[in-house]
Amino acid sequence: MKKSAIRLEAAYRLVNPGGVVLISVGDRERDNLFSVTWNTPVRKDPPLLAIVSGKGHHSYGFIERTGEFGVNVPEAGLADAVLGCGSVSGRTGVDKFERFGLTRQPAASIKAPLVAEAAANLECRVTQVVDLGTSALLIAQVVAAVASDTRFVDGHWKFDEGLELLHHLSGDRFCVSDRVLTGKKNA
Amino acid sequence: MKKSAIRLEAAYRLVNPGGVVLISVGDRERDNLFSVTWNTPVRKDPPLLAIVSGKGHHSYGFIERTGEFGVNVPEAGLADAVLGCGSVSGRTGVDKFERFGLTRQPAASIKAPLVAEAAANLECRVTQVVDLGTSALLIAQVVAAVASDTRFVDGHWKFDEGLELLHHLSGDRFCVSDRVLTGKKNA
Repeated sequence: MKKSAIRLEAAYRLVNPGGVVLISVGDRERDNLFSVTWNTPVRKDPPLLAIVSGKGHHSYGFIERTGEFGVNVPEAGLADAVLGCGSVSGRTGVDKFERFGLTRQPAASIKAPLVAEAAANLECRVTQVVDLGTSALLIAQVVAAVASDTRFVDGHWKFDEGLELLHHLSGDRFCVSDRVLTGKKNA
Repeated sequence: MKKSAIRLEAAYRLVNPGGVVLISVGDRERDNLFSVTWNTPVRKDPPLLAIVSGKGHHSYGFIERTGEFGVNVPEAGLADAVLGCGSVSGRTGVDKFERFGLTRQPAASIKAPLVAEAAANLECRVTQVVDLGTSALLIAQVVAAVASDTRFVDGHWKFDEGLELLHHLSGDRFCVSDRVLTGKKNA
């Protein structure tokens, strides 16, 4: 999949629809992946987003040490990989890229690898940690972003060639968004 | 639309798909509505969610005074109202319920009214405010929730009778999710 850099002012649009994402972490020696339903942009300038992560997760240690993570936006075809990455612990030593048929894509600015099969990838550096008990809300600045040349065109998701974004319902169920509705501002 | 109470452990599922929501605020004398794309559940027990609100917004003062807001989950048919509530300021004195054809639904536990036409309504009390500069991330506990008897059945969104959830892309554009994809956990 050919991807190009996205200007940072438009990067929030990659995660604006509110879908589930794959979070990638790594320190150049080891890496891991986990799925996060609970994520949202929180600011446009500078571009910030927030994700929730369990503090006990294997990946959380990577984020604490590196202060970085990748956000990988999957299409519907990656639903099984998203479920798998969300249900297998990296602590088992499993290589989740290999286990779920995913390919490492080098990042421009962070040590974690990105997911080549994802339609878009955002590189993030943690700026603030909000304690939520056993989990934490990680607020992070987007420092680089790329997206598929055919899926994200002129700064917008393009749905007329089969793009399906994946939104988590619960358990193994997702809903899929695959078309645009244009509202009327002066209704 | 007939609605029933949702047990609080399942309330996060009402907002899990990551769609845009209408936030309602009020002090029993005056009220207002605004649209929020940037929202996410952040904890299951107790049920917490987070929304981003501009501190300069007319509605922000209501939330500061009452510590409460309603989260109203629109179906696609409310797209024009969502855009309208997001582009007209309550400071103009406009009654956004009237202006956008929405009906006040009394809340069980908060002073703000809810939106009767929304498929689900969550009543929230702010527990933590994270400063983001000109905006704030409001973390709030869900204290009550109701949902449409035909749209949210046995604790799950039900898509086989025309349910369309609304996810904001940017400007006047949304994408629509209207079907379920069940993944395989052991792929």
